[in-house]
Amino acid sequence: MEQTAYRLTDIAARFGGRVLGDAEVSQVATLDSAQAGHITFLASAKYRAQLAATRAGAVILGESDADATSLPRIVCAQPYLYFARVSAFLNPPAQAVAGIHPSAVIAADAQIDPTAHIGPHVTIAAGAQIGARSIIMAGCSIGEHTVIGEDALLYPRVVVYHGCLLGKRLIAHSGVVIGADGFGMAPDAGRWLKIPQIGRVQIGDDVEIGANTTIDRGALDDTVIEDGVKLDNQIQVAHNVRIGAHTAIAGCVGIAGSTSIGKHCRIGGSAGILGHLHIADNVEISSFTLIGKSINEPGSYTGIYPFSKSEEWRRNAVHLRRLDGLAQKVKMLQQEIEVLRGENK
Amino acid sequence: MEQTAYRLTDIAARFGGRVLGDAEVSQVATLDSAQAGHITFLASAKYRAQLAATRAGAVILGESDADATSLPRIVCAQPYLYFARVSAFLNPPAQAVAGIHPSAVIAADAQIDPTAHIGPHVTIAAGAQIGARSIIMAGCSIGEHTVIGEDALLYPRVVVYHGCLLGKRLIAHSGVVIGADGFGMAPDAGRWLKIPQIGRVQIGDDVEIGANTTIDRGALDDTVIEDGVKLDNQIQVAHNVRIGAHTAIAGCVGIAGSTSIGKHCRIGGSAGILGHLHIADNVEISSFTLIGKSINEPGSYTGIYPFSKSEEWRRNAVHLRRLDGLAQKVKMLQQEIEVLRGENK
Amino acid sequence: MEQTAYRLTDIAARFGGRVLGDAEVSQVATLDSAQAGHITFLASAKYRAQLAATRAGAVILGESDADATSLPRIVCAQPYLYFARVSAFLNPPAQAVAGIHPSAVIAADAQIDPTAHIGPHVTIAAGAQIGARSIIMAGCSIGEHTVIGEDALLYPRVVVYHGCLLGKRLIAHSGVVIGADGFGMAPDAGRWLKIPQIGRVQIGDDVEIGANTTIDRGALDDTVIEDGVKLDNQIQVAHNVRIGAHTAIAGCVGIAGSTSIGKHCRIGGSAGILGHLHIADNVEISSFTLIGKSINEPGSYTGIYPFSKSEEWRRNAVHLRRLDGLAQKVKMLQQEIEVLRGENK
Repeated sequence: MEQTAYRLTDIAARFGGRVLGDAEVSQVATLDSAQAGHITFLASAKYRAQLAATRAGAVILGESDADATSLPRIVCAQPYLYFARVSAFLNPPAQAVAGIHPSAVIAADAQIDPTAHIGPHVTIAAGAQIGARSIIMAGCSIGEHTVIGEDALLYPRVVVYHGCLLGKRLIAHSGVVIGADGFGMAPDAGRWLKIPQIGRVQIGDDVEIGANTTIDRGALDDTVIEDGVKLDNQIQVAHNVRIGAHTAIAGCVGIAGSTSIGKHCRIGGSAGILGHLHIADNVEISSFTLIGKSINEPGSYTGIYPFSKSEEWRRNAVHLRRLDGLAQKVKMLQQEIEVLRGENK
Repeated sequence: MEQTAYRLTDIAARFGGRVLGDAEVSQVATLDSAQAGHITFLASAKYRAQLAATRAGAVILGESDADATSLPRIVCAQPYLYFARVSAFLNPPAQAVAGIHPSAVIAADAQIDPTAHIGPHVTIAAGAQIGARSIIMAGCSIGEHTVIGEDALLYPRVVVYHGCLLGKRLIAHSGVVIGADGFGMAPDAGRWLKIPQIGRVQIGDDVEIGANTTIDRGALDDTVIEDGVKLDNQIQVAHNVRIGAHTAIAGCVGIAGSTSIGKHCRIGGSAGILGHLHIADNVEISSFTLIGKSINEPGSYTGIYPFSKSEEWRRNAVHLRRLDGLAQKVKMLQQEIEVLRGENK
Repeated sequence: MEQTAYRLTDIAARFGGRVLGDAEVSQVATLDSAQAGHITFLASAKYRAQLAATRAGAVILGESDADATSLPRIVCAQPYLYFARVSAFLNPPAQAVAGIHPSAVIAADAQIDPTAHIGPHVTIAAGAQIGARSIIMAGCSIGEHTVIGEDALLYPRVVVYHGCLLGKRLIAHSGVVIGADGFGMAPDAGRWLKIPQIGRVQIGDDVEIGANTTIDRGALDDTVIEDGVKLDNQIQVAHNVRIGAHTAIAGCVGIAGSTSIGKHCRIGGSAGILGHLHIADNVEISSFTLIGKSINEPGSYTGIYPFSKSEEWRRNAVHLRRLDGLAQKVKMLQQEIEVLRGENK
């Protein structure tokens, strides 16, 4: 894992910004752990004490902090975004080593682009297609007639069921399951009758899906993940959900069937959204919040029970089961006070 | 994926109902996306506008909507259930292609029914048994002495540990883990001593288990899933839980150890049930609700913090930590009003 | 699965305690299901009725219950811990059968200890190391330069990404994913720019990780799990989290990025902890509780919305959105009563 070194002036030539002093850097690091040869960043003035102590070779910072250090530095408008760009430049994604591992089992009519990499113990079923420069790592399983775009990266043990359409530059982490049956069944005299799930999963370009996240296939129509959506680990996306472009969802969120989420939304960890709802664009949902009604206006929404010491919680929470009673009592007190006031007049 | 076509009269001969007009159909679809050759359904009168616009070849609907369209149609008592039956008929489950893939690793004394299908990179350990017509897809791992019944379908990368008993017609989606150790340990001078988990998992007939769901083996006795239980994705079932027949559980639910859930229950997504509880038959638990005490009566139970705009939530939630104080204050006000009333007399 | 039999006196010679009567036992069991040849335990006097009915060959119990049965028994200070020790003695962990399955794909320069066991369809990448007596079961994937200590046990289909350091006696259950990318990205003109995750995962000794749990690699520095930590199933540990030694976390918990949790904590199922927080040592967090602020004092913390019958919940919960109004109203009533009292003087 040798890293190539670049001068700050090389970096600024590529990404802009003002260079003060110069240095050679080959890797990014935090203020605390950076060493010579590392470039770090100051995202906020509140970390100035750590900046004073850093052993970094260079720093990325904003105009207002330009003089906060005498280290070689790049001054720019958005230090965190700049840092992200530099890191992406210094740590480019792995390149596919073209070829199919002999232990992989590939259907005769599957179409594997000759520039793709297929790892050990992969299974690719009949009629599936793998795009140029895509990397399918060890033990993945790709179902019949599923299509995977160019430059995709599937980490070990990803499963994609049959008939799904996955876009370009998809990153799917280990344990992801795409296209399993949605949870669809009809009650039938005390038993459940399974409804065949004949829709597909469609995933746009530039989507990333975290480890052990599951995206179910549609019941009749498709489940759809639009371009640029970012899903963290252990998210559950039920059948016929649609997630709008560039929406980001943190870990452990559950989204029930047929719900549609807008573009550019942000959903916090362990939140939930009930089924058959519509969430507008640019909605922010807090962690641990259950959305039980459609949201038509952009904005920030929350429903979290605040924690406290357990004995304090116990004392308070008991009143939640009598809150209606308490509200009625207050109403009655108001009326009684009205009467008393009248009498006093 | 050629679909066979059937006349409405063929379908009604099989499933009952009254045919008005006739047509040939080969697949089911939603009102919105149906085309000629598709049969759709009207589950509720509120979709009549979509019915008016559908291009479906035929419709399934109830008596009260019998005249809502002039399309060829089947009129029946329970349109959604009827539709489910037609869909199951038009989309029969895959049939096992008998045989063992050469890349599978099968213990010499494992008993694989000759009609079963064992996919690539499957591992089947010593003493395991696979029933007639069962399909074990790519990369599954079946532990020692585990028994899988007839007509089971294990999607790619399912793991079943040793010594488990799985019933007939089991469907287990990718990433399911059955029989991992329960979370059992004894505190031992600041450390945790692992308690061997020597129970098994027993699963009845006609159970379906969603992607990445985990069912732990029992500590001493067994974890038991009864007949007809339906589990969605990413559910966690701890050791020694019992789930009663025909209970359905939505995604991301967690059930703690030794809890017993009745028959015909319905549990909403991301709900939780603490350990060592007993839930009666026919209980319905809402999404996102934590059940912290046993439930002895059938009925519907909820505990959800309602969401609102974040600033509104902030203004309101702060009082939850002083709810007891508020209730005491109201009590005092009542007493003071009593005094004032006395004085006014 | 033949079990060796031991006399109670053999067991007491090893683990202490006072033997009354004697018997040969070969396995542990619950009071209810124990048979001759089984040793059971009484953890609490409330199970005395079951003790009276047990068919066990012998019982482990505390001094205060020493005379509660006439069965052969071991009397000791901590019956549950004693039972755990006896169970561990009677059910020792599997021993590695040294060797590499021919279907495994091992990089030429990977260092596999000759006493280790590598199962079928395992992939071990370049530069990885597997310690003495470790067992890597079917279908695991170990990334480049990852190091796994001695006596580790990885159940089927565990994935460890590149560059991670895993300690001795690690137990990782099926579906665990260690070292996937953290959820790190910078907003960039309405899109998300991925930030390379170049940190690692470091895991200490004697850690157990439940099925389908995910532990992300650090963004820049490492994610760290200290010695003796026990993680249940389906837990999500985000990038740069640190979990202190001997902390135990129940199923379905989500821990957001850069949070540090102390030693000897206990966290209940489906709890959540937001990012960039610090949790002190010896903190207990209830199930289903979201921790949104750092906790500096040991103790027990809770934030659970109590469940009730759904119609009762509906009546009460509506007031949560007007709680601030209710509190204001009570304040006004107090003032009005003050006025009335003044008038009455």
